Amino acid sequence: MSVQFRRVALIGIGLIGSSLAHAMRRKELAGEITGFARSEATRAKARDMGLVDAVFPSPGGAVEDADLVILCSPVGTYAALAAEIAPALKPGAILTDVGSVKGAVVRDVEGHVPPGVHFIPGHPIAGTEQSGPESGFAELFINRWCILTPLPGADTQAVEKLSEFWRGCGSNVEIMTPEHHDLVLAITSHLPHLIAYNIVSTAADLEEVTSSEVIKYSAGGFRDFTRIAASDPTMWRDVFLNNKDAVLEMLGRFSEDLSALQRAIRWGDGDTLFNIFSRSRQIRRGIIAAGQDTAAPDFGRGVPKP
Amino acid sequence: MSVQFRRVALIGIGLIGSSLAHAMRRKELAGEITGFARSEATRAKARDMGLVDAVFPSPGGAVEDADLVILCSPVGTYAALAAEIAPALKPGAILTDVGSVKGAVVRDVEGHVPPGVHFIPGHPIAGTEQSGPESGFAELFINRWCILTPLPGADTQAVEKLSEFWRGCGSNVEIMTPEHHDLVLAITSHLPHLIAYNIVSTAADLEEVTSSEVIKYSAGGFRDFTRIAASDPTMWRDVFLNNKDAVLEMLGRFSEDLSALQRAIRWGDGDTLFNIFSRSRQIRRGIIAAGQDTAAPDFGRGVPKP
Repeated sequence: MSVQFRRVALIGIGLIGSSLAHAMRRKELAGEITGFARSEATRAKARDMGLVDAVFPSPGGAVEDADLVILCSPVGTYAALAAEIAPALKPGAILTDVGSVKGAVVRDVEGHVPPGVHFIPGHPIAGTEQSGPESGFAELFINRWCILTPLPGADTQAVEKLSEFWRGCGSNVEIMTPEHHDLVLAITSHLPHLIAYNIVSTAADLEEVTSSEVIKYSAGGFRDFTRIAASDPTMWRDVFLNNKDAVLEMLGRFSEDLSALQRAIRWGDGDTLFNIFSRSRQIRRGIIAAGQDTAAPDFGRGVPKP
Repeated sequence: MSVQFRRVALIGIGLIGSSLAHAMRRKELAGEITGFARSEATRAKARDMGLVDAVFPSPGGAVEDADLVILCSPVGTYAALAAEIAPALKPGAILTDVGSVKGAVVRDVEGHVPPGVHFIPGHPIAGTEQSGPESGFAELFINRWCILTPLPGADTQAVEKLSEFWRGCGSNVEIMTPEHHDLVLAITSHLPHLIAYNIVSTAADLEEVTSSEVIKYSAGGFRDFTRIAASDPTMWRDVFLNNKDAVLEMLGRFSEDLSALQRAIRWGDGDTLFNIFSRSRQIRRGIIAAGQDTAAPDFGRGVPKP
């Protein structure tokens, strides 16, 4: 594949930023990659690993002359970053991001974007529970969806070029409004993380069951939740602070439904339990058929060595 | 390894029963395996697959002359099964089970056990989301814990012999009271399943987000919950009907904690969110160190083919 962008700037070099660097290298999507990281340790790591061709201690330095600028830090940092990089953005450049919320990103960034710069918010639905520049890998985006939420009147050529970039990383691309994105992700990502964090916290606070028992017998289901709950706390704090309405709406529905299950348990209503429990297999099958999870039992964690 | 039991009867041949059959064959833990299944289809499958040496349409037939009898059906069936097999149990035999609750199993079974038969309730903390005689595999119990809850005055030799059997299947064995078992499993297994079933149900009922969107963007976290929620509905209905008090207790704590998170989101209290989210990584590390989950990111689901 021919080089699509002459210079790409990664603002933040964590799991997503470093995975993008690996993918761009492998698929030759960028002539040159520059990077910004707030911490010297991350900058040194990005340099040593060859993730970027040049790394800067200021975001303005990293974006200079870049054709594509990708915000890859927690969404709570975007407002200040946008203000800082705005004067250095090149006319004709595309400015995008990978944040897990989109309405708040538009709110925080749009006002700073200079005329002639194409601001196209984005969100790759991909990740692992790990963080930092060493956790990235080129295959992270393959077969995953990347949602773009261009603003009304966005330049269609720029949107298409950014879509091509994500397809080059292996993703499928979907376009929707920021509002719809935030509602969809509230149920498919934000609420799952919230209740995973919550059950781990509940378990840690028990008096009658020790932490070592929780750990020992976690294969009964609990261990699955601890993976999601091991995700980056800063990133997730910012998600919940910036998608409040949709998360509270989904949380309200979840709690109502949970109360109905609680009532069925209290009153011994086995039919209600059975009927609710019987609905899930179809959705699981749909996810496997759509290539969004493995069909192997137990995620293929498979067989521990004897 | 020498044969430990001359004849073992499996009462129920689903995921756990068939996995036990595979493990017994591989490790030569049984001279002969008999089985009972309510449905003719399961009996035919168990016969055709060679899981058992003889299969019976009545549980009484299967347990005749057996030295070890293992109840492997949903716990709601145990009372009737115990009444039915009691007259056919051989003096000196061990009667055990694999049910996910233990207090209710003691309540339902103990009164039926004839003098001279050793009743030792048990629970292997192992499984997948799949069900039926074709879903079993010999390695299911390796490195997993099996909890035994012998009653006061239980025969220590019989408890040791059953422990050896589970060690032969690859498990570690722990002894505790039925009450403590039910409390521990309420948090490590029952509550995780309940909230997984619940969020899948909440997602299925949304008006603004379609099922196909939930499926498409499930890699954001939701897909993990659908695996657990694809577990057998009959088995799980019986668990919740039979561990009511402990589940309601844990559910009450979970809901309280969730309300605190909800309040923090509503009021924009980022510090509370960050502090709660920061506690989880340690428990995750403990689970990996204890060999109860893979250290590979994203459960090692790894890299979809390009």
